[in-house]
Amino acid sequence: MWIQKKITLPAASRGFHLITSRVISALPELADCQCGMLQIFIQHTSASLTINENADPDVRADFEVAMNRAVPENQPFSHTLEGSDDMPAHVKASLLGSSLLIPIGNGRPQLGTWQGIYLCEHRDRASGRHLVLTLWGE
Amino acid sequence: MWIQKKITLPAASRGFHLITSRVISALPELADCQCGMLQIFIQHTSASLTINENADPDVRADFEVAMNRAVPENQPFSHTLEGSDDMPAHVKASLLGSSLLIPIGNGRPQLGTWQGIYLCEHRDRASGRHLVLTLWGE
Amino acid sequence: MWIQKKITLPAASRGFHLITSRVISALPELADCQCGMLQIFIQHTSASLTINENADPDVRADFEVAMNRAVPENQPFSHTLEGSDDMPAHVKASLLGSSLLIPIGNGRPQLGTWQGIYLCEHRDRASGRHLVLTLWGE
Repeated sequence: MWIQKKITLPAASRGFHLITSRVISALPELADCQCGMLQIFIQHTSASLTINENADPDVRADFEVAMNRAVPENQPFSHTLEGSDDMPAHVKASLLGSSLLIPIGNGRPQLGTWQGIYLCEHRDRASGRHLVLTLWGE
Repeated sequence: MWIQKKITLPAASRGFHLITSRVISALPELADCQCGMLQIFIQHTSASLTINENADPDVRADFEVAMNRAVPENQPFSHTLEGSDDMPAHVKASLLGSSLLIPIGNGRPQLGTWQGIYLCEHRDRASGRHLVLTLWGE
Repeated sequence: MWIQKKITLPAASRGFHLITSRVISALPELADCQCGMLQIFIQHTSASLTINENADPDVRADFEVAMNRAVPENQPFSHTLEGSDDMPAHVKASLLGSSLLIPIGNGRPQLGTWQGIYLCEHRDRASGRHLVLTLWGE
């Protein structure tokens, strides 16, 4: 089986947001996949995707603290026309990555108990974000 | 072919550990794969996987130095109940990533000469870590 | 369909380089893939791959600034025999990653408008870099 569809996430505030249920619910075909892969790909360069702790909202808030420290806005950048948050957003997007690949077994994503899917919005003001979901397997 | 199995790595000390042979030996089916993919997925949010230099143990020790500098423990985090190493562990896990995808050709992983698979253990005291290995191809 | 081929990129200067068209042109078979995946894997531990902004060359230059700040050369590293740029190169390679996975639909990579493929060369003086390209789907 090969299934590919695009979904658009509504505009999110700068920060880290749990989107696990939104992604899973877009793919009822998961139930028919005994063994396979789900790829989630974000078609943008200033937002990204990661897998992390799905329980405590403080973790998502602390991610913003840590990423702002790792990639601060006060660097001698040349690409500044789109705002001081733009170039750090590009770098954060590459550090966290533009796609996730999740193993599927017995009709379900094989995530660990504490794993959830994050949308990482690195811009101060962003529009909706387009994701390409691709599921394949048997 | 689609093969999926879970293995558990024994508890490792905080740091970076070569696990290439452990992963490969868990998959004798690799020999039957002329062209395919191997995904290694870690079901945790405070440990991660990466590919890096497989020869000099100093590289693994230096990784610990560099990651501690990039994501230090003395930040104004809210999620601190599980210890000062916990929140940095989450961030390091996302920076390095929860899965690896390795091309398979002629029955072998197509790693470069100097490439090995690292388990990146970011917690001071961790239990064993669960990996999902998925191999598919022809 | 399963197609795997190796290409070698010519030696590049330290920094971030757009290689989208070089990769795509190596795979005319993309046109025959209605739904699938393209993996690009780099067989090295001091260069990496990422997806980011494909238009303004300043973004690529600023990436070098940001990554040098995130992983500076003046750390207490032990692995220094190959030069002060070597250990930081290994760390940058793992932070950005050794492979990309791009969804294919209707014979084309489903990249966003502003997304391009970067070779990230982290060494001061590097040789050519080997990539393994694998395309599969239907």
